[in-house]
Amino acid sequence: MKSALAFGVDIGGTRTKIAVVDIFGNVIDRKIISMSEYRKISDYNRFITSLCECILYFSAQLDNKEILGIGIGAPNADHRNMTIANPANLWHCDQNRIFELGNDLRRELTKNGLSDINLKMSNDANTAALGEMFFGGAKELSNFMVVTLGTGVGGGIVLNRRLIEGSNSQAGEIGHMKIEHTDRLCGCGMKGCLESYVSAGGICRTAIEWLYSKKYNSSIEDIPIEKLSCLDICNAAKNGDQMAQALFEFTGKLLGTKLADVISLLDIEAIFLTGGVAKANELILNPVKRAVNDSLPSRYHNIKIEISEINDDFAAARGAATMIFFNP
Amino acid sequence: MKSALAFGVDIGGTRTKIAVVDIFGNVIDRKIISMSEYRKISDYNRFITSLCECILYFSAQLDNKEILGIGIGAPNADHRNMTIANPANLWHCDQNRIFELGNDLRRELTKNGLSDINLKMSNDANTAALGEMFFGGAKELSNFMVVTLGTGVGGGIVLNRRLIEGSNSQAGEIGHMKIEHTDRLCGCGMKGCLESYVSAGGICRTAIEWLYSKKYNSSIEDIPIEKLSCLDICNAAKNGDQMAQALFEFTGKLLGTKLADVISLLDIEAIFLTGGVAKANELILNPVKRAVNDSLPSRYHNIKIEISEINDDFAAARGAATMIFFNP
Repeated sequence: MKSALAFGVDIGGTRTKIAVVDIFGNVIDRKIISMSEYRKISDYNRFITSLCECILYFSAQLDNKEILGIGIGAPNADHRNMTIANPANLWHCDQNRIFELGNDLRRELTKNGLSDINLKMSNDANTAALGEMFFGGAKELSNFMVVTLGTGVGGGIVLNRRLIEGSNSQAGEIGHMKIEHTDRLCGCGMKGCLESYVSAGGICRTAIEWLYSKKYNSSIEDIPIEKLSCLDICNAAKNGDQMAQALFEFTGKLLGTKLADVISLLDIEAIFLTGGVAKANELILNPVKRAVNDSLPSRYHNIKIEISEINDDFAAARGAATMIFFNP
Repeated sequence: MKSALAFGVDIGGTRTKIAVVDIFGNVIDRKIISMSEYRKISDYNRFITSLCECILYFSAQLDNKEILGIGIGAPNADHRNMTIANPANLWHCDQNRIFELGNDLRRELTKNGLSDINLKMSNDANTAALGEMFFGGAKELSNFMVVTLGTGVGGGIVLNRRLIEGSNSQAGEIGHMKIEHTDRLCGCGMKGCLESYVSAGGICRTAIEWLYSKKYNSSIEDIPIEKLSCLDICNAAKNGDQMAQALFEFTGKLLGTKLADVISLLDIEAIFLTGGVAKANELILNPVKRAVNDSLPSRYHNIKIEISEINDDFAAARGAATMIFFNP
């Protein structure tokens, strides 16, 4: 008997993950492409070849199974035309470069004998939300948001069990909601974006500001600034470092205050945090919950705010595969 | 030939408007019930009787036409069970009083020979959004928001041409998104809600604070504080009063900054302002637009931000009727 399978592809700045996924979200086979070999804009075509080879390899292995299609999640992806616009950490591109990854991959696959395959693409925060909806903590929820806290800060919104894409494939961009009364510059060119505070790099920026202000004595001082990571701050907080703990309190409060606005606006049932920063677990989750409760009347206090249940390495790839299985 | 008609009912604190509407949004007949006769909680049943009588009267007049149903918009309405929970300005009720208006009206209609009529209900900001979608400036738009600026501040969100209701019929509550760093108390019991600044009463509160601070010489000083209205401030601004103009600048900037967050989050194409405060037109619209543009990258600067095209007295009633015609 044939069993239905799909490819889930999660294109990231450091690694691209390819998973063969079954309809229950199980990863049947997997491969990781290190992006260090494909950093430059001139490496893009080689990357497409490499991705195509990987898919063809798996397809050959699985010839008695039915491959339903390929779902791809990528930063800045546009679901309508399957392009990636100006990805900050991919193929070191200048502004205004649009990669037609969908078309390019399809052409390469067709050239190699795999034609007419079902291909879908969405941005990586959306695929995280789809993963949560079909394989994670949102299986029985109608209205929820997944917030990705990593190098960037993004979000995927599901309302009435439909993914909200927006007019220009940009819905869910919670990272560019604004913190008032701050001048901190964001990668997008604007000031005061939430991302500039609650991304992994944003937390490090706050840490460095606080170290310079000498407000705290902290073990973080011993780490060279250029090597400081969010994980270092997380470890310091777990070891009792007061500044590190205060950093998560501060960051969680900023995030929670914005999430309260989102809850007010969309009347959602749950928010799931995922990505590297979410690995700090209670350190970030508790101040987020406190800020939400402080901002909203009691009728909202039963809203689920949790770390994603599928915060594993192949979560986004599994989420991408759902676009093939469920047409969400 | 029968032509399809529906009742649109807009229940408000001052007046309830009943319109007989055709499928193009034309008001065929209309009646206004003054709510001054139905202020107390003990007046609720008489109000239901009065509303029923009005519908029966029109039905009798229109016996050669097909009445498809009754759409009702009301503050705090829950579309799921057609109830109104704790309406601040209706039937002077305490907290935790839920009016089963849908069931009560249906029972009264049935008792009087009009049984099995299609009845739908939603909150008044949602019906405003539906009016805009079918009869106003959003006829050709998929993703937009209508913001109602009146005694309260609410919103109706349409995504993919579906009204977003939320998990508890509370979606669109932009009025309770938070202004940071302020302690101004809102009617909802929380501090810093947008509504406490950009509602008609909120603008008056700011005016009174500014008058006390003696920052400006203003013609508004001549108006007794207890009689001051948003319309007075609007008129003063049009007559060149600097404080009144600055009040709209200040208010529009607060509103525009929050709308920028909404645009970032939902990737909508347009925002329409309606309600009493929106009658100030450019006075409120221009600072809103400036704040949106100041907050968002240039790719968002072509988003339509306009005063609603159907900001007339029966706009909400016409919007309520769309629930019958279009099942949105």
